[in-house]
Amino acid sequence: VATADHTRGRRTGRPPGLTGNREAILASARREFFQRAYEGATIRGIAAAAGVDPALIYHYFGSKDRLLIEALRQADPGRPSVDDMLPKLLEDGLEQLGERVIRGMMQIDARAFRTALQSASNSESAAQMVREAFADGGLVRLVRALDRPQEEVRLALVESLITGLVVLRFVLCVEPTASADIESIVAWYGPPLQRLLLEPLS
Amino acid sequence: VATADHTRGRRTGRPPGLTGNREAILASARREFFQRAYEGATIRGIAAAAGVDPALIYHYFGSKDRLLIEALRQADPGRPSVDDMLPKLLEDGLEQLGERVIRGMMQIDARAFRTALQSASNSESAAQMVREAFADGGLVRLVRALDRPQEEVRLALVESLITGLVVLRFVLCVEPTASADIESIVAWYGPPLQRLLLEPLS
Repeated sequence: VATADHTRGRRTGRPPGLTGNREAILASARREFFQRAYEGATIRGIAAAAGVDPALIYHYFGSKDRLLIEALRQADPGRPSVDDMLPKLLEDGLEQLGERVIRGMMQIDARAFRTALQSASNSESAAQMVREAFADGGLVRLVRALDRPQEEVRLALVESLITGLVVLRFVLCVEPTASADIESIVAWYGPPLQRLLLEPLS
Repeated sequence: VATADHTRGRRTGRPPGLTGNREAILASARREFFQRAYEGATIRGIAAAAGVDPALIYHYFGSKDRLLIEALRQADPGRPSVDDMLPKLLEDGLEQLGERVIRGMMQIDARAFRTALQSASNSESAAQMVREAFADGGLVRLVRALDRPQEEVRLALVESLITGLVVLRFVLCVEPTASADIESIVAWYGPPLQRLLLEPLS
């Protein structure tokens, strides 16, 4: 990660050391939050693992809460973030949009969702961060871009179905959702999600 | 609680002291789990608050996990449990069943759900208990009693929508679901739930 960021830092003209530090902090934060959860992870431990001074973490991120959210937003640098991915699905039109949203959600890093939920249920300030991430996240932007009637109700229902799917599959591991293959999950959840996204609600 | 259970113990012919102890342990367990969550609560602390020997808790419940589930199943002795309430809704037929399920879910003790989710995301053995509670819980029995095609898919979708609603409203507090009044929640979630419970899925 440090090498790649170093390169990227130079390419965009930013001082290479600083960009590398920021990415190294995020990578270290992900490891610590995933392993120890919000309450167990410390700024000091994250700084030590990243080889930086704790003050630099406060300089970049302001607080442990903000660091958590930034770390979870790009949970795995190798995967697309939900915030980027979901609105882009509209480029291929509305047909089977529900299926495509579900397929996209199945590619997310489950550890990030587990950590977010665990952190939010243990800490009110982490919960506040998760709420902010929801409020300007990819799912909200997707629903707003569709510009359908009853937008707030639609948003509540779409968020509920997807949050429930993610919690049952990745956090509580309740069957049959927990171990169904991805094609089954897409076939089950896609059509009802399509109706909630696009069709009249009642 | 102790007085009421003492009376109930006599009425059903069980030794009054034992029943009273069991209920006192459950009441004490609810307080401790709600306040300190699964990891913070201890058998020793729950026993001390209930005025019993810790060994009695193991005698009645076997483990901290089992105690957690029993405590959450009847979270508030003054309210109906979800397990009892949901299957009973069928006695009034299928009309507006979705609305009635949602209205019932809004009467639950939110602390029990928060504690269950928090415990399950912090402890694999608590997660196992929550899965068992799901598997023979009121929602599963309701869906099975409806005897509609694609029962497992229906179950997954119904559980997801309701789990999502509960998580958004009571755990993460994401708007607009978090602070909408109960009649709005019933009007928004009832019709889609009715379709998932009873109508063809695709």
